[in-house]
Amino acid sequence: MSLLITVGREFGSGGRELGRRLADNLHIAYYDKEILQELVKNTPYSQRYIEEVSEAKPVPLFPIHYGVSWSNVNDPFSPSTDVFKKQNEIMREMALKSSCVIIGRAADYVLRDLHPYRLFVYADMPSKIARCRERDSNPNITDKEIIKNIKRIEKNRRSFYDFYANATWGAKENYDLLINTSGQDIKELANALAVYFEPRLEK
Amino acid sequence: MSLLITVGREFGSGGRELGRRLADNLHIAYYDKEILQELVKNTPYSQRYIEEVSEAKPVPLFPIHYGVSWSNVNDPFSPSTDVFKKQNEIMREMALKSSCVIIGRAADYVLRDLHPYRLFVYADMPSKIARCRERDSNPNITDKEIIKNIKRIEKNRRSFYDFYANATWGAKENYDLLINTSGQDIKELANALAVYFEPRLEK
Repeated sequence: MSLLITVGREFGSGGRELGRRLADNLHIAYYDKEILQELVKNTPYSQRYIEEVSEAKPVPLFPIHYGVSWSNVNDPFSPSTDVFKKQNEIMREMALKSSCVIIGRAADYVLRDLHPYRLFVYADMPSKIARCRERDSNPNITDKEIIKNIKRIEKNRRSFYDFYANATWGAKENYDLLINTSGQDIKELANALAVYFEPRLEK
Repeated sequence: MSLLITVGREFGSGGRELGRRLADNLHIAYYDKEILQELVKNTPYSQRYIEEVSEAKPVPLFPIHYGVSWSNVNDPFSPSTDVFKKQNEIMREMALKSSCVIIGRAADYVLRDLHPYRLFVYADMPSKIARCRERDSNPNITDKEIIKNIKRIEKNRRSFYDFYANATWGAKENYDLLINTSGQDIKELANALAVYFEPRLEK
């Protein structure tokens, strides 16, 4: 049986970097944007629409948001739940193919029958602001704007998770390990995690 | 600066074993019952009284509970807050002496100015029951009795922590790492943690 590690993460917590480094250390696959790309290839929806709904609670259909006409007008939620279903199929296929790390998308819940090891990565607000500032190309952005952005994205992730998993995003009972990256070195964290997971990899 | 690791833990989660193994791996001091022994040596109270109050929310004085007469009858809480203060002094002394692991007693909050690395160890109920059963000498104890015991002890720890730290016991914002031991190997967890902490030890 292959090893599946899922990573839930607050925005700006470094969860993606941690997942990436962990996958590199373990020489296993890593899936984040790759899932989006597969969705664009395998559904009739535009990349923009998919990006909007792939980690958000279902919203009623607004035709302007996606690229193709949609016949099933009786169910205005159907394109976003359709994306959700397709996304789940893609993640399952990835997880069954080989050991891997999957970022976000309620993969911990969706693939629960595959017994993933479920990480949740978080940080305090000052750390998240600092991390966002590091990767933001606009040096004039204010802290207030960054905080607003963090809160908006986390609100989406939270309602997506809570809606589909019927559980609370970031609540410890849904995870195996919750990592506060505030003031911590992500590289060292990834190294220690690799030591923990190494014996579980198929030889 | 020495390394201080604090361990909050649910009852039956294996937090104590994890802390013990981690201290062993790092060759640093480990304090749990040792704090109780120091309290018995350094206060006028009986061991039984200290065991009862050292990790509980202050309760009014009941003379039957402790071994010596107490003059300050105007403040019925004073013996338990007295134990709390003395316990804090002892923990601070221990933490300043050398790198160490301290179990429970809101050490993460009490010694926050020493910048501890704050672990919280938890598990699901079936795992906690199984662990309690392993170490319980009575093979006839029922699951119901074990659950009652777990809930009673955790209620004490929770109200102790919430009262003194004015924060929520087990809530992720108060910790650096939260470890779910359900189905996990404590020894392997302790090994991986040691890899993470090793570089932080004074050379």
